Amino acid sequence: MASVRVGVIGAGWIGLDHMRRLTQVVPGAEVTAVTDVDAERAAQAAARFPARTLPTGADLVAAPDVDAVLVTSWGPTHAEHVLNAVAAGKPVFCEKPLATTAEDCLRIVKAEMASGRRLVQVGFMRRYDAGYRELKDVITGNGIGAPLMVHCAHRNAGAPASYTSPMAAQDTAVHEIDVLRWLLDDEIVSAQVLTPRATGRRHPHLKDPQFMLFETARGVRIDLEVFVNCQYGYDIQCEAVGETGVARLPDPAAVSLRSAGRHGRAVLQDWQHRFASAFDTELREWVAGVAAGGEPQGPSAWDGYAATVITDAAVESLESDGQVVNVDLQDRPVFYSP
Amino acid sequence: MASVRVGVIGAGWIGLDHMRRLTQVVPGAEVTAVTDVDAERAAQAAARFPARTLPTGADLVAAPDVDAVLVTSWGPTHAEHVLNAVAAGKPVFCEKPLATTAEDCLRIVKAEMASGRRLVQVGFMRRYDAGYRELKDVITGNGIGAPLMVHCAHRNAGAPASYTSPMAAQDTAVHEIDVLRWLLDDEIVSAQVLTPRATGRRHPHLKDPQFMLFETARGVRIDLEVFVNCQYGYDIQCEAVGETGVARLPDPAAVSLRSAGRHGRAVLQDWQHRFASAFDTELREWVAGVAAGGEPQGPSAWDGYAATVITDAAVESLESDGQVVNVDLQDRPVFYSP
Amino acid sequence: MASVRVGVIGAGWIGLDHMRRLTQVVPGAEVTAVTDVDAERAAQAAARFPARTLPTGADLVAAPDVDAVLVTSWGPTHAEHVLNAVAAGKPVFCEKPLATTAEDCLRIVKAEMASGRRLVQVGFMRRYDAGYRELKDVITGNGIGAPLMVHCAHRNAGAPASYTSPMAAQDTAVHEIDVLRWLLDDEIVSAQVLTPRATGRRHPHLKDPQFMLFETARGVRIDLEVFVNCQYGYDIQCEAVGETGVARLPDPAAVSLRSAGRHGRAVLQDWQHRFASAFDTELREWVAGVAAGGEPQGPSAWDGYAATVITDAAVESLESDGQVVNVDLQDRPVFYSP
Amino acid sequence: MASVRVGVIGAGWIGLDHMRRLTQVVPGAEVTAVTDVDAERAAQAAARFPARTLPTGADLVAAPDVDAVLVTSWGPTHAEHVLNAVAAGKPVFCEKPLATTAEDCLRIVKAEMASGRRLVQVGFMRRYDAGYRELKDVITGNGIGAPLMVHCAHRNAGAPASYTSPMAAQDTAVHEIDVLRWLLDDEIVSAQVLTPRATGRRHPHLKDPQFMLFETARGVRIDLEVFVNCQYGYDIQCEAVGETGVARLPDPAAVSLRSAGRHGRAVLQDWQHRFASAFDTELREWVAGVAAGGEPQGPSAWDGYAATVITDAAVESLESDGQVVNVDLQDRPVFYSP
Repeated sequence: MASVRVGVIGAGWIGLDHMRRLTQVVPGAEVTAVTDVDAERAAQAAARFPARTLPTGADLVAAPDVDAVLVTSWGPTHAEHVLNAVAAGKPVFCEKPLATTAEDCLRIVKAEMASGRRLVQVGFMRRYDAGYRELKDVITGNGIGAPLMVHCAHRNAGAPASYTSPMAAQDTAVHEIDVLRWLLDDEIVSAQVLTPRATGRRHPHLKDPQFMLFETARGVRIDLEVFVNCQYGYDIQCEAVGETGVARLPDPAAVSLRSAGRHGRAVLQDWQHRFASAFDTELREWVAGVAAGGEPQGPSAWDGYAATVITDAAVESLESDGQVVNVDLQDRPVFYSP
Repeated sequence: MASVRVGVIGAGWIGLDHMRRLTQVVPGAEVTAVTDVDAERAAQAAARFPARTLPTGADLVAAPDVDAVLVTSWGPTHAEHVLNAVAAGKPVFCEKPLATTAEDCLRIVKAEMASGRRLVQVGFMRRYDAGYRELKDVITGNGIGAPLMVHCAHRNAGAPASYTSPMAAQDTAVHEIDVLRWLLDDEIVSAQVLTPRATGRRHPHLKDPQFMLFETARGVRIDLEVFVNCQYGYDIQCEAVGETGVARLPDPAAVSLRSAGRHGRAVLQDWQHRFASAFDTELREWVAGVAAGGEPQGPSAWDGYAATVITDAAVESLESDGQVVNVDLQDRPVFYSP
Repeated sequence: MASVRVGVIGAGWIGLDHMRRLTQVVPGAEVTAVTDVDAERAAQAAARFPARTLPTGADLVAAPDVDAVLVTSWGPTHAEHVLNAVAAGKPVFCEKPLATTAEDCLRIVKAEMASGRRLVQVGFMRRYDAGYRELKDVITGNGIGAPLMVHCAHRNAGAPASYTSPMAAQDTAVHEIDVLRWLLDDEIVSAQVLTPRATGRRHPHLKDPQFMLFETARGVRIDLEVFVNCQYGYDIQCEAVGETGVARLPDPAAVSLRSAGRHGRAVLQDWQHRFASAFDTELREWVAGVAAGGEPQGPSAWDGYAATVITDAAVESLESDGQVVNVDLQDRPVFYSP
Repeated sequence: MASVRVGVIGAGWIGLDHMRRLTQVVPGAEVTAVTDVDAERAAQAAARFPARTLPTGADLVAAPDVDAVLVTSWGPTHAEHVLNAVAAGKPVFCEKPLATTAEDCLRIVKAEMASGRRLVQVGFMRRYDAGYRELKDVITGNGIGAPLMVHCAHRNAGAPASYTSPMAAQDTAVHEIDVLRWLLDDEIVSAQVLTPRATGRRHPHLKDPQFMLFETARGVRIDLEVFVNCQYGYDIQCEAVGETGVARLPDPAAVSLRSAGRHGRAVLQDWQHRFASAFDTELREWVAGVAAGGEPQGPSAWDGYAATVITDAAVESLESDGQVVNVDLQDRPVFYSP
């Protein structure tokens, strides 16, 4: 079986990491072409994971030795590249966000529907994490009865000065937003962002932590602590409360150590390690799907659209002193039925 | 050293349990008198833990062989008995609530202040739980930096038909309200009660679960899930998030069992077992304090007043579709400084 | 109900701690008399927990205001005091060991049998620990099927220079020896002590750690790591493996802390804290039993005898390069049937 | 980079599983040829993972389109196939055991040394398990000081009638034997097998559980419970005790569930799931190494030889009523220095 020939648009660190993954971890794929707005960066990537460079994303999408496209460029350019790929009828994997505005997301949705088949997958990797998958199995298998509440926390050790208050929703909470829609098989209908006492260990412009509340169509209440300067490590918590039980996402397995008066485990310091296996599985399944000629099974363009609309609502709440903001999603077309 | 002679007003189950405790668990105390609106019940209690019966609470407070009073009668009668004890200058331990209205609480506060010394302790036993005490030590010892958020859950396996929606605040959340004020050494300034999708396993009149939000004077955000029909057991969770760390209340120690494909522990089914040691410690320290002639060190009449005002705010929020309700507490008199 | 009047022989730290417990923690008891080979020490104790001093243990046992005797003197003197108490027909609680030789233990056993009733209890406090009791309930309740193996560890942060290699069995493992006989309701029939590589962090004369193996009459294999210079804290582990499951003694409940890159709990540093509640329960139940006029329900003189014979076998194995040494116990008289 | 062309000898379940892995999980490999003593079985495997069949192992080793050989045939045939591969100068991955006798292992060792380079890797997959690797990092990084003891358990839910008492060492404990030699970077010098009370839930011919004791050259004492009918699941425990701390292998991460009065996690039921990632990593690293033209970094022929000699000693102890049996290993040639 011939390898899937992947073209990569954007050779920043996530692009490079995916090139490494396609080359060294995922079977059945090869990177044939790479492009970047910085030609030098593209050349270095092409040298490291042998591929040719192309001047533009459009060239890369059009290249005959590119079967499928991976978009890992700067967020605001995603829509253009994805639309090009859809127009070319080529499968495209786009790192989140699908697009930076709801309008652009909808343009992609419409173009994809017009093309008659699903081509787009968005890079929400948590759906591929073994822990979340087991959690979904428990919920789907009626292990806790009907879900009523979900308590979440998303903590990072620290955030750079470039991290702004809206990014708590756009870049951070967006992962929970996607994975909870999938976990609950439910839609989020409102968002609210409260601001607890701020930590002193942050850049002064930043509201951190933030406490977010979401409600779903079925009335499930989700609360999410986003705390990006928690100091102690990268820590993802998710506890689903149902009518008959409570299920909790596992912490990563780690050696327990009894030493110096303490009994404990190391906390991971970065999200790459936390979700390394999820990234591997995500690309492995995507490549296998492309090779098999089927439609992508992962997060769809619709999921990308919904995530953008919901994060917009959260940002609006943040900027209006914590008002409850309704999520104004269009009706989901049958084309995107799960 | 002579025993403290305790008179008990109210011989229901909690009264009986405290009589057992004073007789068999706590040193330095004896129950000398008991009264109840049901004379038969008083007689049975008096036979079981040898004591004499008295016709009324007023008689009991006045009795010369009663050094200190324990009020375990029906909530609406608490204020009268406590005021009698204060008037008599006798130490009085009153099970929560101190009184069922803020006005009555304030009458007690004023009477106690007028008496010139602290005589009243309210039965919020969680402050005596080893886990909460360790948690307070961690917070006070700067183990997590300044507190920013607290995530709590209070779950009961089931609630009887007589349990109404306001009781989620009045009878259930009131324990968290008191213990968090103490844990954080901070005051609660607003309350909000949201209603997630209701469980099917409840009496139809009941809103269950409820999701409560509190804010403190320093800006700490507290969220509290109250879920009194969770089916699986009695479960108390409390996680404090600070600037540099996160501390969590321990679950009760329990044998871990690997059996039948599962690795786990039993969850306690009732709160009496969960807080049995706390009840013991609470009364032991109270009796020792009375014997030593000092003022009570436990939850004060002011704490009882604050708890009532805050639960009133929560109930008002519940009954107004989840509006944020400000807590309208008077200024704390110096008399009640910690 | 009148208090049990206890006389205490031996005012060292454990004697003082029990005097505190009888005075401040356990209801229904008072310390009326104390004696010590060091008269000054006795006087100080008597001043602290108001009691009178008596010149000798024999005087104390004979005193009319002593209903029951607590022996907390130096181990080699235990037998004499216990025999005196038995001769006087007074209940006697003796800290371990019952006696330092099997012969002396047997003399006590015979004297007690001759007296016609059980008077002696030995201070093996672990039987009163909530965790061990729950573990026994699980085993007795067929929670793991028939027991086949037990894996144990007994670790101390450090040991003083006065701690010698045989004390690993005599002073340390003796607790497991007693509690396992009780937990399994079985008798130990052989002992073997192996010596792993020694830690560098010990006094040079000491073999530490030691790895002990015991076999019971029913064929259960027990292994016990004794490590008294483990550095990190006081740590007691016990895991029972049965035909259908594995049950493990709980660690003490403790606040979990996520901080500085670690997620963990503090390990206790001393055994007094670890078994504080067990000591309380042990004396509470003993006092209640004496007050009720029944025979002691705790570890018997026979248990004290068995523990001494088994620790002797372990020491013999240690001193003979790890030979398996049979435990040469007499047949248990019906008098001591459980 | 061209794929490594792997020939597979033995198309039983482990052979098939490795063929699946090489085809679908590991990048850079393809299965080009397969053989089996059962030609039908070989044909089915060849159809499933497209490859050609060859009549014999010798043919397969000699085939020009086979770069490297995977031996997954019946144990007693391993030596012949491995020797063929070494003679052909081809890298060979051999599932454990390397050979069923120490003599055959030594023949392979000598042949490999004579060939002048390392070609053989033995399939001890635990060295590739993330938990064991973290444990090794902790030990190597002085996280527990010098190791003194290791406590292990290896439990299976059940064993078939064909599982005999010596297999507890040969097929089960052999995994701990290899991984502990690697973990401690130390050699095992004696073995002893004790037989606790046997479970009733076993085939009558089987001694189960067995309790194994090993000593290393540095004096570390290892104890290992092997219990292959524990009923409740597949459970691997490993706790290393050092001079300053204790490190424990993590259990697999799993959703924790509070439900029906219990708080717990599922225990895995089979070892394939437990070590699935380890198998993947093992083959991925082996293929990458072969592709890079280097010598294999995994368990060597010497490790295979040592494992066989040590398991022989354990079986001899089992069959001589638990005598301590010295491990009679030859001196390790410099060729096999770590």
